[in-house]
Amino acid sequence: MRAAVFNEPGSITVADRPDPVITQPTDAIVRVVLSGVCGSDLWYYRGDSPFEPGPIGHELIGVVEEIGAEVRKIKRGDFVISPFAFSDGTCPHCRHGITSACSAGGFYPSNGDGGQGEGVRVPLADGTLVPVPGSGHADETMASLLTLSDVLATGHHAAVCADVKPGGVVAVVGDGAVGLSGILAAVRIGAERLIVLSRNPVRQELAREFGATDIVEGRGEEAIEAVRQLTRGVGADAVMECVGTAQAMQTATSIARPGSIVGYVGVPHEIELPIGDMFLRNVGVRGGSAPVRAYIEELLPDVLEGRINPGRVFDFTTDLEGVGEAYAAMNERRAIKSLLHVGTV
Amino acid sequence: MRAAVFNEPGSITVADRPDPVITQPTDAIVRVVLSGVCGSDLWYYRGDSPFEPGPIGHELIGVVEEIGAEVRKIKRGDFVISPFAFSDGTCPHCRHGITSACSAGGFYPSNGDGGQGEGVRVPLADGTLVPVPGSGHADETMASLLTLSDVLATGHHAAVCADVKPGGVVAVVGDGAVGLSGILAAVRIGAERLIVLSRNPVRQELAREFGATDIVEGRGEEAIEAVRQLTRGVGADAVMECVGTAQAMQTATSIARPGSIVGYVGVPHEIELPIGDMFLRNVGVRGGSAPVRAYIEELLPDVLEGRINPGRVFDFTTDLEGVGEAYAAMNERRAIKSLLHVGTV
Repeated sequence: MRAAVFNEPGSITVADRPDPVITQPTDAIVRVVLSGVCGSDLWYYRGDSPFEPGPIGHELIGVVEEIGAEVRKIKRGDFVISPFAFSDGTCPHCRHGITSACSAGGFYPSNGDGGQGEGVRVPLADGTLVPVPGSGHADETMASLLTLSDVLATGHHAAVCADVKPGGVVAVVGDGAVGLSGILAAVRIGAERLIVLSRNPVRQELAREFGATDIVEGRGEEAIEAVRQLTRGVGADAVMECVGTAQAMQTATSIARPGSIVGYVGVPHEIELPIGDMFLRNVGVRGGSAPVRAYIEELLPDVLEGRINPGRVFDFTTDLEGVGEAYAAMNERRAIKSLLHVGTV
Repeated sequence: MRAAVFNEPGSITVADRPDPVITQPTDAIVRVVLSGVCGSDLWYYRGDSPFEPGPIGHELIGVVEEIGAEVRKIKRGDFVISPFAFSDGTCPHCRHGITSACSAGGFYPSNGDGGQGEGVRVPLADGTLVPVPGSGHADETMASLLTLSDVLATGHHAAVCADVKPGGVVAVVGDGAVGLSGILAAVRIGAERLIVLSRNPVRQELAREFGATDIVEGRGEEAIEAVRQLTRGVGADAVMECVGTAQAMQTATSIARPGSIVGYVGVPHEIELPIGDMFLRNVGVRGGSAPVRAYIEELLPDVLEGRINPGRVFDFTTDLEGVGEAYAAMNERRAIKSLLHVGTV
């Protein structure tokens, strides 16, 4: 099959790779229909985080082609969403709702395949995959379904971790696809006011479409001051940190009101949490890899029924052979997020 | 009046100080009956945190002697608990329940008096002080009422921040008075299993009296391994960090199960939060100076009706002139916590 491979920072190409095969009786083989490029993939592309040469990518939806002997719920022909983490659904962490910490689990490409390729072996298929009801979904619904494999669920995790409540004032640090998804998630929960930090006109427009009520263009101290003014000196009831840099976290903890929590989902890079200030102001932090699998049932109906359109974060579309350009467009901030048309349903 | 003064690390003596007087119309003057020595006072005593020479202490109960012209709720003769933080009860932070972040507030001895003295000026008296109903309370009830000025409410804050739930498995790092109070607080909320890290037989005994179900004697990696074994590899549902050192926090985050929160109330000293591990394992941290004032109404009936006996943490009693020895006993770990009999009701 054809699949994207990471060669070295700055170089993602498409190569011939072995077709995935069932190796465990709980595996399924999924033929990929749509795949996405994640902000976390860019950390590797930029050389900011180490990554082994080989397959890459972890956002995908597709069709089940084959199942192992012990797979009971997932059937051949199912159109499925694959979360970026594999999970058995039965261990204490899965039952506690933290499927990304599954005792038996793992992450792409520890299975041997990356999500940016024609096919993947999915371990723990019954626990991991979620069949999508219906068929013949419109292109925009398909793009939105793809966001359930990571970015929408990750934005939702930020909102859950930040304890976003109906009627609350929420601040979102980060106008990337995760931050934008976080806006949708917070609006879904019922946030009344949504302050979004963004200096990019295209992203500001989508943020407003998703429900942002206030845009703050400054960075650092300027942004902190602006949010304080917008909240009459109080700070936000909940803050979502969707970047993962030291400055973003510093801003996030500073604009959080006493007693609130910063929900963070950007993979942290060289962040030192300001524990002295956090203690003085009673500001907590909570986050991590989203337990995507645990959130899909809750989010899927809103996507299928068109109440939210998270697929709008994809503003660059190509096919698998164009994957290098898909990364470059995001890296150069020409695109918010890239979509790969890999196969057909 | 006579009052304790901090001279320099290792030296707390009693000196003549000016009697407190009303300086603001919202002030009250309280004659101190009982005062306590806090673990946070020891940071100054040991020279681990800077402290200006002068009055010290912030845990007290006493009788209102005088009130300012604008004090409406508090009356002369009221027997009151004074939280360690002053709060107006009307600002956004107070209304949000974080009275320790009151916009108009402050902390002893910013008012000019410390809690370890014969009298104090209490700013924002109507917002800060809580009258205790009844009279002629037994000595043990009096000691327990004193814990409502800080240590019991601080332990409760750790439990609230850690999101302790009925039926849960809770781990407590720290067997000092705060950790012990945290046990009481978690039991009150309904925790089913309470794993307490302690290597001191006297404290272990009190921990068990308060409701600890398991004692772990190791430190560091040994303690982490022991808690993992006790929880079948899962970790605790909620962790309370009641020390404030790097090792205690490291242990606390390591024994917290994925999806849980470490509630921390020990003033942090040279702690660097392990954000990479916290992210990977979805472990949050939340804490700070306890909003004591906001918790007293909830905790007071349990103290008055004897359902909990937090005053048991005081195992060294002296009078105001003995304050130096009260600090020394705690510093040398001869005492869990010291009580000063300063006046009579």
